[in-house]
Amino acid sequence: MKENRLPEINFRHRLPVQIRFNDIDMFGHINNSIYLQFLDMGKYAYFRQFMTDTFGSEPTAPVVANINCDFIEPTKIDEKLEVLTAITDIADSSMTLDQRVVNADGRVKCSARTIMVNVSLADGRPTTVSDPWRHRISDYESHKN
Amino acid sequence: MKENRLPEINFRHRLPVQIRFNDIDMFGHINNSIYLQFLDMGKYAYFRQFMTDTFGSEPTAPVVANINCDFIEPTKIDEKLEVLTAITDIADSSMTLDQRVVNADGRVKCSARTIMVNVSLADGRPTTVSDPWRHRISDYESHKN
Amino acid sequence: MKENRLPEINFRHRLPVQIRFNDIDMFGHINNSIYLQFLDMGKYAYFRQFMTDTFGSEPTAPVVANINCDFIEPTKIDEKLEVLTAITDIADSSMTLDQRVVNADGRVKCSARTIMVNVSLADGRPTTVSDPWRHRISDYESHKN
Amino acid sequence: MKENRLPEINFRHRLPVQIRFNDIDMFGHINNSIYLQFLDMGKYAYFRQFMTDTFGSEPTAPVVANINCDFIEPTKIDEKLEVLTAITDIADSSMTLDQRVVNADGRVKCSARTIMVNVSLADGRPTTVSDPWRHRISDYESHKN
Repeated sequence: MKENRLPEINFRHRLPVQIRFNDIDMFGHINNSIYLQFLDMGKYAYFRQFMTDTFGSEPTAPVVANINCDFIEPTKIDEKLEVLTAITDIADSSMTLDQRVVNADGRVKCSARTIMVNVSLADGRPTTVSDPWRHRISDYESHKN
Repeated sequence: MKENRLPEINFRHRLPVQIRFNDIDMFGHINNSIYLQFLDMGKYAYFRQFMTDTFGSEPTAPVVANINCDFIEPTKIDEKLEVLTAITDIADSSMTLDQRVVNADGRVKCSARTIMVNVSLADGRPTTVSDPWRHRISDYESHKN
Repeated sequence: MKENRLPEINFRHRLPVQIRFNDIDMFGHINNSIYLQFLDMGKYAYFRQFMTDTFGSEPTAPVVANINCDFIEPTKIDEKLEVLTAITDIADSSMTLDQRVVNADGRVKCSARTIMVNVSLADGRPTTVSDPWRHRISDYESHKN
Repeated sequence: MKENRLPEINFRHRLPVQIRFNDIDMFGHINNSIYLQFLDMGKYAYFRQFMTDTFGSEPTAPVVANINCDFIEPTKIDEKLEVLTAITDIADSSMTLDQRVVNADGRVKCSARTIMVNVSLADGRPTTVSDPWRHRISDYESHKN
Protein backbone atom coordinates (compact mmCIF):
# COMPACT_ATOMS: atom_id res chain seq x y z
CA MET A 1 0.00 0.00 0.00
CA LYS A 2 1.41 3.33 -0.96
CA GLU A 3 1.87 6.17 1.50
CA ASN A 4 -0.97 8.65 1.31
CA ARG A 5 -0.30 11.12 4.09
CA LEU A 6 -0.71 14.79 3.29
CA PRO A 7 1.24 17.75 4.69
CA GLU A 8 0.71 18.10 8.43
CA ILE A 9 -2.09 20.25 9.79
CA ASN A 10 -2.48 20.16 13.54
CA PHE A 11 -6.11 19.05 13.81
CA ARG A 12 -7.48 19.43 17.31
CA HIS A 13 -11.10 18.63 16.42
CA ARG A 14 -11.72 14.96 15.65
CA LEU A 15 -15.16 13.42 15.25
CA PRO A 16 -15.65 9.68 14.69
CA VAL A 17 -18.20 9.13 11.91
CA GLN A 18 -20.39 6.08 11.69
CA ILE A 19 -20.74 4.44 8.29
CA ARG A 20 -24.26 3.41 7.25
CA PHE A 21 -25.10 0.41 5.15
CA ASN A 22 -26.55 2.59 2.40
CA ASP A 23 -23.51 4.91 2.28
CA ILE A 24 -21.94 2.26 0.09
CA ASP A 25 -22.76 2.50 -3.59
CA MET A 26 -22.85 -0.10 -6.32
CA PHE A 27 -19.06 0.02 -6.63
CA GLY A 28 -18.77 -1.19 -3.02
CA HIS A 29 -17.37 2.12 -1.73
CA ILE A 30 -18.67 5.14 0.11
CA ASN A 31 -20.30 7.45 -2.43
CA ASN A 32 -18.69 10.88 -2.96
CA SER A 33 -21.75 12.76 -1.76
CA ILE A 34 -21.55 10.94 1.58
CA TYR A 35 -18.13 12.43 2.34
CA LEU A 36 -19.82 15.83 2.20
CA GLN A 37 -22.23 14.62 4.86
CA PHE A 38 -19.19 13.70 6.98
CA LEU A 39 -17.65 17.14 6.39
CA ASP A 40 -20.98 18.70 7.40
CA MET A 41 -21.02 16.64 10.59
CA GLY A 42 -17.52 17.86 11.41
CA LYS A 43 -18.53 21.48 10.81
CA TYR A 44 -21.68 21.18 12.87
CA ALA A 45 -19.84 19.60 15.83
CA TYR A 46 -17.02 22.15 15.56
CA PHE A 47 -19.30 25.19 15.74
CA ARG A 48 -21.77 23.56 18.15
CA GLN A 49 -19.12 23.33 20.89
CA PHE A 50 -19.10 27.15 21.09
CA MET A 51 -22.88 27.48 21.31
CA THR A 52 -23.83 25.87 24.59
CA ASP A 53 -26.16 28.71 25.44
CA THR A 54 -26.65 30.49 22.15
CA PHE A 55 -27.62 27.70 19.75
CA GLY A 56 -30.58 28.92 17.70
CA SER A 57 -30.28 32.51 18.91
CA GLU A 58 -27.16 33.70 17.05
CA PRO A 59 -27.87 36.61 14.63
CA THR A 60 -25.48 35.24 12.00
CA ALA A 61 -24.54 31.82 10.66
CA PRO A 62 -21.61 30.55 8.60
CA VAL A 63 -22.78 29.19 5.23
CA VAL A 64 -20.73 27.16 2.79
CA ALA A 65 -19.61 29.17 -0.25
CA ASN A 66 -17.06 26.79 -1.76
CA ILE A 67 -15.79 23.26 -1.18
CA ASN A 68 -12.66 21.99 -2.87
CA CYS A 69 -12.35 18.29 -2.13
CA ASP A 70 -9.76 15.71 -3.17
CA PHE A 71 -11.12 12.16 -3.12
CA ILE A 72 -7.98 10.20 -2.40
CA GLU A 73 -8.81 6.61 -1.55
CA PRO A 74 -12.04 4.56 -1.54
CA THR A 75 -13.62 3.42 1.75
CA LYS A 76 -15.31 0.09 2.47
CA ILE A 77 -18.16 -0.58 4.89
CA ASP A 78 -16.13 -1.99 7.80
CA GLU A 79 -13.52 0.77 8.04
CA LYS A 80 -13.44 3.11 11.04
CA LEU A 81 -13.47 6.78 10.04
CA GLU A 82 -12.92 10.14 11.67
CA VAL A 83 -13.41 13.62 10.27
CA LEU A 84 -10.74 16.14 11.32
CA THR A 85 -11.58 19.84 11.24
CA ALA A 86 -9.52 22.98 11.72
CA ILE A 87 -10.27 26.61 11.02
CA THR A 88 -7.05 27.80 9.44
CA ASP A 89 -7.97 31.38 8.53
CA ILE A 90 -10.53 34.00 9.50
CA ALA A 91 -10.94 36.95 7.15
CA ASP A 92 -13.41 39.80 7.58
CA SER A 93 -16.65 37.93 6.84
CA SER A 94 -15.34 34.52 5.86
CA MET A 95 -13.48 31.56 7.33
CA THR A 96 -11.34 28.80 5.85
CA LEU A 97 -11.86 25.26 7.16
CA ASP A 98 -9.46 22.46 6.40
CA GLN A 99 -10.92 19.00 6.87
CA ARG A 100 -9.84 15.41 6.33
CA VAL A 101 -11.59 12.10 6.54
CA VAL A 102 -9.13 9.46 7.75
CA ASN A 103 -9.38 5.81 8.74
CA ALA A 104 -8.02 4.05 11.83
CA ASP A 105 -4.68 3.48 10.08
CA GLY A 106 -4.32 7.19 9.43
CA ARG A 107 -4.94 6.82 5.70
CA VAL A 108 -6.54 9.90 4.21
CA LYS A 109 -9.80 9.21 2.35
CA CYS A 110 -10.55 12.78 1.36
CA SER A 111 -9.12 16.20 2.04
CA ALA A 112 -11.26 19.30 1.72
CA ARG A 113 -10.91 23.03 2.04
CA THR A 114 -14.15 24.90 2.63
CA ILE A 115 -14.81 28.62 2.51
CA MET A 116 -17.67 29.64 4.77
CA VAL A 117 -19.20 33.08 4.67
CA ASN A 118 -20.73 34.53 7.80
CA VAL A 119 -24.19 35.79 6.83
CA SER A 120 -26.83 37.74 8.66
CA LEU A 121 -29.89 35.57 9.30
CA ALA A 122 -32.05 38.68 8.90
CA ASP A 123 -31.08 39.58 5.34
CA GLY A 124 -28.67 36.92 4.12
CA ARG A 125 -25.84 39.41 3.59
CA PRO A 126 -22.16 38.72 4.43
CA THR A 127 -21.37 40.09 7.88
CA THR A 128 -18.14 40.63 9.76
CA VAL A 129 -17.24 37.66 11.97
CA SER A 130 -17.87 39.01 15.47
CA ASP A 131 -15.04 39.42 17.97
CA PRO A 132 -16.44 36.82 20.40
CA TRP A 133 -16.47 34.25 17.60
CA ARG A 134 -12.93 35.18 16.53
CA HIS A 135 -11.73 34.76 20.09
CA ARG A 136 -13.49 31.45 20.66
CA ILE A 137 -12.10 29.99 17.46
CA SER A 138 -8.55 31.31 17.74
CA ASP A 139 -8.44 30.31 21.39
CA TYR A 140 -9.62 26.81 20.49
CA GLU A 141 -7.18 26.44 17.62
CA SER A 142 -4.20 27.78 19.59
CA HIS A 143 -4.59 25.31 22.46
CA LYS A 144 -3.55 22.17 20.67
CA ASN A 145 -2.23 19.15 22.41
CA MET B 1 -40.85 -13.67 -14.78
CA LYS B 2 -43.66 -14.37 -12.40
CA GLU B 3 -46.77 -12.24 -12.21
CA ASN B 4 -46.56 -9.76 -9.37
CA ARG B 5 -49.68 -7.63 -9.70
CA LEU B 6 -51.60 -6.89 -6.53
CA PRO B 7 -55.35 -6.43 -6.10
CA GLU B 8 -56.60 -3.41 -8.04
CA ILE B 9 -56.75 -0.01 -6.41
CA ASN B 10 -57.80 2.80 -8.69
CA PHE B 11 -54.79 5.12 -8.29
CA ARG B 12 -55.44 8.55 -9.75
CA HIS B 13 -52.26 10.17 -8.42
CA ARG B 14 -49.12 9.05 -10.23
CA LEU B 15 -45.71 10.67 -9.79
CA PRO B 16 -42.68 9.60 -11.81
CA VAL B 17 -39.67 9.27 -9.51
CA GLN B 18 -36.13 9.76 -10.68
CA ILE B 19 -33.56 7.23 -9.51
CA ARG B 20 -30.23 8.61 -8.28
CA PHE B 21 -26.89 6.92 -8.72
CA ASN B 22 -26.44 6.60 -4.96
CA ASP B 23 -29.92 5.11 -4.38
CA ILE B 24 -28.35 1.82 -5.39
CA ASP B 25 -26.66 -0.09 -2.60
CA MET B 26 -23.83 -2.61 -2.63
CA PHE B 27 -26.24 -5.36 -3.73
CA GLY B 28 -26.92 -3.40 -6.95
CA HIS B 29 -30.51 -2.56 -5.99
CA ILE B 30 -32.40 0.40 -4.62
CA ASN B 31 -31.98 0.40 -0.83
CA ASN B 32 -35.13 -0.12 1.26
CA SER B 33 -34.88 3.27 2.90
CA ILE B 34 -34.98 4.94 -0.52
CA TYR B 35 -38.46 3.57 -1.22
CA LEU B 36 -39.62 5.54 1.81
CA GLN B 37 -38.22 8.65 0.17
CA PHE B 38 -40.32 7.80 -2.90
CA LEU B 39 -43.42 7.30 -0.74
CA ASP B 40 -42.70 10.69 0.91
CA MET B 41 -42.44 12.33 -2.50
CA GLY B 42 -45.81 10.86 -3.46
CA LYS B 43 -47.39 12.11 -0.23
CA TYR B 44 -45.92 15.57 -0.59
CA ALA B 45 -47.08 15.92 -4.22
CA TYR B 46 -50.51 14.54 -3.34
CA PHE B 47 -51.17 17.03 -0.54
CA ARG B 48 -49.36 19.89 -2.27
CA GLN B 49 -51.90 19.92 -5.12
CA PHE B 50 -54.57 21.09 -2.65
CA MET B 51 -52.45 23.89 -1.19
CA THR B 52 -51.93 26.35 -4.01
CA ASP B 53 -52.65 29.28 -1.76
CA THR B 54 -52.36 27.84 1.71
CA PHE B 55 -48.97 26.10 1.68
CA GLY B 56 -47.16 27.04 4.87
CA SER B 57 -50.22 28.63 6.48
CA GLU B 58 -52.36 25.57 7.33
CA PRO B 59 -52.98 25.20 11.10
CA THR B 60 -52.64 21.40 10.95
CA ALA B 61 -50.45 18.92 9.12
CA PRO B 62 -50.72 15.18 8.48
CA VAL B 63 -47.84 13.29 10.10
CA VAL B 64 -46.90 9.67 9.52
CA ALA B 65 -47.87 7.38 12.42
CA ASN B 66 -47.35 3.98 10.81
CA ILE B 67 -46.00 2.55 7.56
CA ASN B 68 -46.54 -1.07 6.63
CA CYS B 69 -44.52 -1.80 3.51
CA ASP B 70 -44.07 -4.97 1.45
CA PHE B 71 -40.81 -4.99 -0.50
CA ILE B 72 -41.75 -7.14 -3.46
CA GLU B 73 -39.10 -6.97 -6.16
CA PRO B 74 -35.66 -5.35 -6.39
CA THR B 75 -35.07 -2.36 -8.68
CA LYS B 76 -31.99 -1.62 -10.79
CA ILE B 77 -30.60 1.75 -11.75
CA ASP B 78 -31.98 2.01 -15.28
CA GLU B 79 -35.62 1.17 -14.48
CA LYS B 80 -38.34 3.81 -14.81
CA LEU B 81 -40.43 4.14 -11.67
CA GLU B 82 -43.65 5.81 -10.59
CA VAL B 83 -45.17 6.14 -7.14
CA LEU B 84 -48.96 5.75 -7.05
CA THR B 85 -50.88 7.28 -4.16
CA ALA B 86 -54.51 7.08 -3.05
CA ILE B 87 -56.23 8.08 0.15
CA THR B 88 -58.53 5.16 0.79
CA ASP B 89 -60.02 6.13 4.15
CA ILE B 90 -60.51 9.26 6.27
CA ALA B 91 -61.37 8.74 9.92
CA ASP B 92 -61.86 11.49 12.50
CA SER B 93 -58.25 12.64 12.87
CA SER B 94 -56.43 10.15 10.66
CA MET B 95 -56.15 9.08 7.03
CA THR B 96 -55.14 5.87 5.30
CA LEU B 97 -52.88 6.15 2.25
CA ASP B 98 -52.26 3.26 -0.07
CA GLN B 99 -49.17 3.61 -2.21
CA ARG B 100 -47.24 1.54 -4.71
CA VAL B 101 -43.96 1.95 -6.48
CA VAL B 102 -44.20 0.39 -9.96
CA ASN B 103 -41.94 0.23 -12.98
CA ALA B 104 -42.73 0.94 -16.64
CA ASP B 105 -43.86 -2.67 -17.14
CA GLY B 106 -46.37 -2.35 -14.31
CA ARG B 107 -44.37 -4.57 -12.00
CA VAL B 108 -44.88 -3.67 -8.36
CA LYS B 109 -41.65 -2.94 -6.47
CA CYS B 110 -43.21 -2.13 -3.14
CA SER B 111 -46.68 -1.69 -1.73
CA ALA B 112 -47.29 0.39 1.38
CA ARG B 113 -50.15 1.39 3.62
CA THR B 114 -49.53 4.49 5.69
CA ILE B 115 -51.57 5.88 8.56
CA MET B 116 -51.26 9.64 8.85
CA VAL B 117 -52.55 11.55 11.83
CA ASN B 118 -53.68 15.13 11.41
CA VAL B 119 -51.96 17.15 14.13
CA SER B 120 -52.24 20.72 15.27
CA LEU B 121 -49.05 22.63 14.50
CA ALA B 122 -49.63 24.66 17.67
CA ASP B 123 -49.56 21.81 20.18
CA GLY B 124 -48.88 18.60 18.25
CA ARG B 125 -52.18 17.03 19.25
CA PRO B 126 -54.36 14.93 16.92
CA THR B 127 -57.04 17.13 15.39
CA THR B 128 -60.17 16.38 13.39
CA VAL B 129 -59.55 16.46 9.63
CA SER B 130 -61.31 19.67 8.58
CA ASP B 131 -64.33 19.60 6.25
CA PRO B 132 -62.56 21.48 3.45
CA TRP B 133 -59.78 18.89 3.47
CA ARG B 134 -62.30 16.01 3.50
CA HIS B 135 -64.06 17.53 0.52
CA ARG B 136 -60.91 18.19 -1.49
CA ILE B 137 -59.66 14.66 -0.94
CA SER B 138 -62.94 12.81 -1.50
CA ASP B 139 -63.67 14.96 -4.53
CA TYR B 140 -60.22 14.18 -5.92
CA GLU B 141 -60.49 10.47 -5.25
CA SER B 142 -64.02 10.17 -6.66
CA HIS B 143 -63.14 11.70 -10.03
CA LYS B 144 -61.04 8.92 -11.40
CA ASN B 145 -60.49 8.37 -15.06
CA MET C 1 -44.10 14.40 28.94
CA LYS C 2 -46.28 11.38 28.55
CA GLU C 3 -45.00 7.88 29.08
CA ASN C 4 -44.18 6.19 25.80
CA ARG C 5 -42.69 2.84 26.78
CA LEU C 6 -43.84 -0.21 24.86
CA PRO C 7 -44.25 -3.78 26.12
CA GLU C 8 -40.91 -5.22 27.20
CA ILE C 9 -38.75 -7.12 24.75
CA ASN C 10 -35.41 -8.21 26.10
CA PHE C 11 -33.12 -6.56 23.55
CA ARG C 12 -29.56 -7.82 23.83
CA HIS C 13 -28.26 -6.10 20.68
CA ARG C 14 -27.89 -2.33 21.04
CA LEU C 15 -26.13 -0.11 18.50
CA PRO C 16 -25.63 3.63 19.08
CA VAL C 17 -26.53 5.54 15.92
CA GLN C 18 -24.99 8.85 15.01
CA ILE C 19 -27.33 11.56 13.75
CA ARG C 20 -26.19 13.53 10.71
CA PHE C 21 -26.94 17.16 10.07
CA ASN C 22 -28.90 16.34 6.93
CA ASP C 23 -31.02 13.65 8.64
CA ILE C 24 -33.14 16.52 9.88
CA ASP C 25 -35.84 17.66 7.50
CA MET C 26 -37.56 21.01 7.09
CA PHE C 27 -39.81 20.27 10.08
CA GLY C 28 -36.71 20.14 12.30
CA HIS C 29 -37.00 16.38 12.94
CA ILE C 30 -35.38 13.22 11.66
CA ASN C 31 -37.09 12.26 8.42
CA ASN C 32 -39.02 8.96 8.40
CA SER C 33 -36.81 7.41 5.74
CA ILE C 34 -33.78 7.95 7.98
CA TYR C 35 -35.19 5.67 10.66
CA LEU C 36 -35.10 2.90 8.07
CA GLN C 37 -31.40 3.59 7.63
CA PHE C 38 -31.02 3.15 11.40
CA LEU C 39 -32.96 -0.12 11.30
CA ASP C 40 -30.70 -1.27 8.43
CA MET C 41 -27.63 -0.42 10.49
CA GLY C 42 -28.99 -2.49 13.38
CA LYS C 43 -29.67 -5.44 11.07
CA TYR C 44 -26.27 -5.25 9.44
CA ALA C 45 -24.45 -5.11 12.79
CA TYR C 46 -26.62 -7.91 14.19
CA PHE C 47 -25.88 -10.35 11.37
CA ARG C 48 -22.28 -9.17 10.91
CA GLN C 49 -21.32 -10.39 14.39
CA PHE C 50 -21.90 -13.99 13.25
CA MET C 51 -19.83 -13.64 10.08
CA THR C 52 -16.28 -13.07 11.26
CA ASP C 53 -14.92 -15.53 8.74
CA THR C 54 -17.76 -16.01 6.30
CA PHE C 55 -18.71 -12.43 5.35
CA GLY C 56 -19.12 -12.32 1.58
CA SER C 57 -18.97 -16.11 1.17
CA GLU C 58 -22.36 -17.17 2.58
CA PRO C 59 -24.58 -18.92 -0.04
CA THR C 60 -27.74 -17.24 1.25
CA ALA C 61 -28.67 -13.81 2.56
CA PRO C 62 -31.65 -12.49 4.53
CA VAL C 63 -33.60 -9.90 2.51
CA VAL C 64 -36.32 -7.61 3.81
CA ALA C 65 -39.82 -8.65 2.76
CA ASN C 66 -41.93 -6.44 5.01
CA ILE C 67 -41.41 -3.62 7.49
CA ASN C 68 -44.20 -2.48 9.78
CA CYS C 69 -43.03 0.62 11.61
CA ASP C 70 -44.74 2.85 14.17
CA PHE C 71 -43.32 6.37 14.23
CA ILE C 72 -43.95 7.36 17.82
CA GLU C 73 -42.12 10.54 18.68
CA PRO C 74 -40.04 13.04 16.67
CA THR C 75 -36.27 13.31 17.17
CA LYS C 76 -34.15 16.46 17.17
CA ILE C 77 -30.54 16.82 16.08
CA ASP C 78 -28.89 16.77 19.52
CA GLU C 79 -30.57 13.64 20.89
CA LYS C 80 -28.56 10.47 21.51
CA LEU C 81 -30.08 7.42 19.84
CA GLU C 82 -29.65 3.68 19.87
CA VAL C 83 -31.24 1.01 17.70
CA LEU C 84 -32.22 -2.16 19.56
CA THR C 85 -32.56 -5.39 17.60
CA ALA C 86 -33.84 -8.85 18.49
CA ILE C 87 -34.74 -11.83 16.36
CA THR C 88 -37.95 -13.02 17.96
CA ASP C 89 -38.93 -15.84 15.61
CA ILE C 90 -37.30 -18.10 13.02
CA ALA C 91 -39.62 -19.96 10.66
CA ASP C 92 -38.53 -22.28 7.84
CA SER C 93 -37.13 -19.68 5.44
CA SER C 94 -37.96 -16.43 7.24
CA MET C 95 -37.13 -14.55 10.41
CA THR C 96 -38.92 -11.93 12.46
CA LEU C 97 -36.88 -8.99 13.77
CA ASP C 98 -38.19 -6.62 16.38
CA GLN C 99 -36.40 -3.29 16.52
CA ARG C 100 -36.72 -0.01 18.35
CA VAL C 101 -34.99 3.32 18.09
CA VAL C 102 -34.74 4.89 21.55
CA ASN C 103 -33.08 7.97 22.99
CA ALA C 104 -30.87 8.30 26.07
CA ASP C 105 -33.95 8.78 28.28
CA GLY C 106 -35.41 5.49 27.07
CA ARG C 107 -38.11 7.19 25.03
CA VAL C 108 -39.12 5.15 22.01
CA LYS C 109 -38.86 7.02 18.71
CA CYS C 110 -39.99 4.21 16.46
CA SER C 111 -40.81 0.55 16.83
CA ALA C 112 -40.58 -1.80 13.87
CA ARG C 113 -41.21 -5.42 13.06
CA THR C 114 -39.40 -6.71 9.99
CA ILE C 115 -39.89 -9.97 8.15
CA MET C 116 -36.72 -11.14 6.43
CA VAL C 117 -36.67 -13.99 3.97
CA ASN C 118 -33.56 -16.07 3.57
CA VAL C 119 -32.83 -16.27 -0.15
CA SER C 120 -30.30 -18.18 -2.20
CA LEU C 121 -27.78 -15.80 -3.75
CA ALA C 122 -27.59 -18.15 -6.75
CA ASP C 123 -31.23 -17.97 -7.81
CA GLY C 124 -32.98 -15.56 -5.44
CA ARG C 125 -35.38 -18.22 -4.14
CA PRO C 126 -36.45 -18.56 -0.49
CA THR C 127 -34.25 -21.12 1.24
CA THR C 128 -34.44 -22.86 4.60
CA VAL C 129 -32.50 -21.02 7.31
CA SER C 130 -29.49 -23.31 7.87
CA ASP C 131 -28.97 -25.07 11.20
CA PRO C 132 -25.71 -23.21 11.96
CA TRP C 133 -27.52 -19.89 11.57
CA ARG C 134 -30.43 -21.08 13.73
CA HIS C 135 -28.00 -22.08 16.43
CA ARG C 136 -25.97 -18.88 16.31
CA ILE C 137 -29.08 -16.74 16.55
CA SER C 138 -30.94 -18.73 19.20
CA ASP C 139 -27.77 -19.05 21.23
CA TYR C 140 -27.22 -15.30 21.01
CA GLU C 141 -30.81 -14.46 21.90
CA SER C 142 -30.96 -16.92 24.81
CA HIS C 143 -27.90 -15.51 26.57
CA LYS C 144 -29.30 -12.23 27.69
CA ASN C 145 -27.94 -10.27 30.55
CA MET D 1 -32.76 39.82 -7.20
CA LYS D 2 -29.18 40.21 -8.26
CA GLU D 3 -27.84 38.77 -11.47
CA ASN D 4 -26.06 35.49 -10.86
CA ARG D 5 -25.10 34.23 -14.30
CA LEU D 6 -21.59 32.89 -14.77
CA PRO D 7 -19.40 33.05 -17.86
CA GLU D 8 -20.95 31.14 -20.75
CA ILE D 9 -20.17 27.49 -21.27
CA ASN D 10 -22.08 25.86 -24.09
CA PHE D 11 -23.74 23.01 -22.19
CA ARG D 12 -25.28 20.45 -24.51
CA HIS D 13 -26.12 17.90 -21.81
CA ARG D 14 -29.04 18.93 -19.61
CA LEU D 15 -30.74 16.62 -17.11
CA PRO D 16 -33.79 17.69 -15.10
CA VAL D 17 -33.35 16.65 -11.47
CA GLN D 18 -36.25 15.90 -9.18
CA ILE D 19 -36.11 17.37 -5.69
CA ARG D 20 -37.07 15.04 -2.84
CA PHE D 21 -38.81 16.10 0.34
CA ASN D 22 -35.85 15.05 2.46
CA ASP D 23 -33.29 16.92 0.31
CA ILE D 24 -34.33 19.98 2.27
CA ASP D 25 -32.50 20.50 5.53
CA MET D 26 -33.50 22.29 8.72
CA PHE D 27 -32.64 25.65 7.15
CA GLY D 28 -35.35 25.04 4.51
CA HIS D 29 -32.86 24.65 1.64
CA ILE D 30 -31.32 21.83 -0.31
CA ASN D 31 -28.38 20.49 1.70
CA ASN D 32 -24.91 20.88 0.15
CA SER D 33 -24.32 17.15 -0.03
CA ILE D 34 -27.44 16.77 -2.18
CA TYR D 35 -25.97 18.94 -4.92
CA LEU D 36 -23.22 16.35 -5.23
CA GLN D 37 -25.90 13.73 -5.81
CA PHE D 38 -27.23 15.95 -8.63
CA LEU D 39 -23.72 16.29 -10.09
CA ASP D 40 -23.36 12.48 -9.89
CA MET D 41 -26.67 12.05 -11.73
CA GLY D 42 -25.44 14.37 -14.47
CA LYS D 43 -22.18 12.45 -14.79
CA TYR D 44 -23.88 9.08 -14.87
CA ALA D 45 -26.38 10.19 -17.54
CA TYR D 46 -23.60 11.84 -19.56
CA PHE D 47 -21.42 8.75 -19.72
CA ARG D 48 -24.34 6.32 -19.92
CA GLN D 49 -25.41 7.73 -23.29
CA PHE D 50 -22.20 6.34 -24.84
CA MET D 51 -22.58 2.87 -23.36
CA THR D 52 -25.69 1.45 -24.98
CA ASP D 53 -23.97 -1.86 -25.59
CA THR D 54 -20.95 -1.74 -23.35
CA PHE D 55 -22.40 -0.79 -19.94
CA GLY D 56 -20.84 -3.06 -17.35
CA SER D 57 -18.23 -4.47 -19.73
CA GLU D 58 -15.84 -1.52 -20.13
CA PRO D 59 -12.30 -2.30 -18.86
CA THR D 60 -11.87 1.19 -17.38
CA ALA D 61 -14.07 3.66 -15.52
CA PRO D 62 -13.74 7.37 -14.77
CA VAL D 63 -13.53 8.02 -11.02
CA VAL D 64 -13.82 11.36 -9.29
CA ALA D 65 -10.47 12.72 -8.07
CA ASN D 66 -11.43 16.30 -7.20
CA ILE D 67 -14.57 18.42 -7.03
CA ASN D 68 -14.36 22.18 -6.68
CA CYS D 69 -17.87 23.50 -6.12
CA ASP D 70 -19.21 27.00 -5.59
CA PHE D 71 -22.52 27.07 -3.73
CA ILE D 72 -24.08 30.22 -5.10
CA GLU D 73 -27.72 30.44 -4.12
CA PRO D 74 -30.01 28.34 -1.90
CA THR D 75 -32.80 26.22 -3.41
CA LYS D 76 -36.30 25.65 -2.02
CA ILE D 77 -38.45 22.58 -2.38
CA ASP D 78 -40.73 23.77 -5.19
CA GLU D 79 -38.04 24.99 -7.59
CA LYS D 80 -37.41 23.19 -10.87
CA LEU D 81 -33.78 22.25 -11.35
CA GLU D 82 -31.54 20.97 -14.11
CA VAL D 83 -27.94 19.83 -13.98
CA LEU D 84 -25.84 20.88 -16.98
CA THR D 85 -22.72 18.89 -17.82
CA ALA D 86 -19.89 19.40 -20.31
CA ILE D 87 -16.52 17.74 -20.67
CA THR D 88 -14.24 20.68 -21.33
CA ASP D 89 -10.86 18.97 -21.42
CA ILE D 90 -9.42 15.49 -21.94
CA ALA D 91 -5.83 14.92 -20.88
CA ASP D 92 -3.94 11.61 -21.07
CA SER D 93 -5.72 9.73 -18.29
CA SER D 94 -8.03 12.40 -16.90
CA MET D 95 -11.00 14.53 -17.92
CA THR D 96 -12.36 17.88 -16.75
CA LEU D 97 -16.12 18.19 -16.32
CA ASP D 98 -17.83 21.50 -15.85
CA GLN D 99 -21.28 21.31 -14.32
CA ARG D 100 -23.94 23.67 -13.11
CA VAL D 101 -27.21 23.24 -11.29
CA VAL D 102 -29.69 25.87 -12.50
CA ASN D 103 -33.35 26.58 -11.89
CA ALA D 104 -36.11 27.30 -14.40
CA ASP D 105 -35.27 31.02 -14.36
CA GLY D 106 -31.67 30.27 -15.33
CA ARG D 107 -30.35 31.18 -11.89
CA VAL D 108 -27.22 29.23 -11.02
CA LYS D 109 -27.45 27.31 -7.74
CA CYS D 110 -24.03 25.77 -7.84
CA SER D 111 -21.15 25.55 -10.26
CA ALA D 112 -18.63 22.73 -10.10
CA ARG D 113 -15.49 21.61 -11.84
CA THR D 114 -14.66 17.93 -11.45
CA ILE D 115 -11.48 16.10 -12.36
CA MET D 116 -12.12 12.47 -13.21
CA VAL D 117 -9.32 9.97 -13.62
CA ASN D 118 -9.77 7.03 -15.95
CA VAL D 119 -8.77 3.93 -13.99
CA SER D 120 -8.34 0.31 -14.91
CA LEU D 121 -11.00 -1.83 -13.23
CA ALA D 122 -8.44 -4.64 -13.00
CA ASP D 123 -5.84 -2.86 -10.89
CA GLY D 124 -7.20 0.60 -10.11
CA ARG D 125 -4.35 2.38 -11.89
CA PRO D 126 -4.77 5.51 -14.03
CA THR D 127 -5.07 4.52 -17.68
CA THR D 128 -5.00 6.48 -20.92
CA VAL D 129 -8.47 7.51 -22.08
CA SER D 130 -9.05 5.26 -25.09
CA ASP D 131 -9.42 6.70 -28.57
CA PRO D 132 -13.04 5.51 -28.98
CA TRP D 133 -13.97 7.37 -25.79
CA ARG D 134 -12.10 10.51 -26.90
CA HIS D 135 -13.96 10.43 -30.19
CA ARG D 136 -17.38 9.87 -28.66
CA ILE D 137 -16.92 12.71 -26.21
CA SER D 138 -15.34 15.24 -28.57
CA ASP D 139 -17.91 14.41 -31.23
CA TYR D 140 -20.70 14.91 -28.70
CA GLU D 141 -19.29 18.17 -27.39
CA SER D 142 -18.59 19.60 -30.84
CA HIS D 143 -22.14 19.13 -32.10
CA LYS D 144 -23.83 21.77 -30.07
CA ASN D 145 -27.05 23.37 -31.02
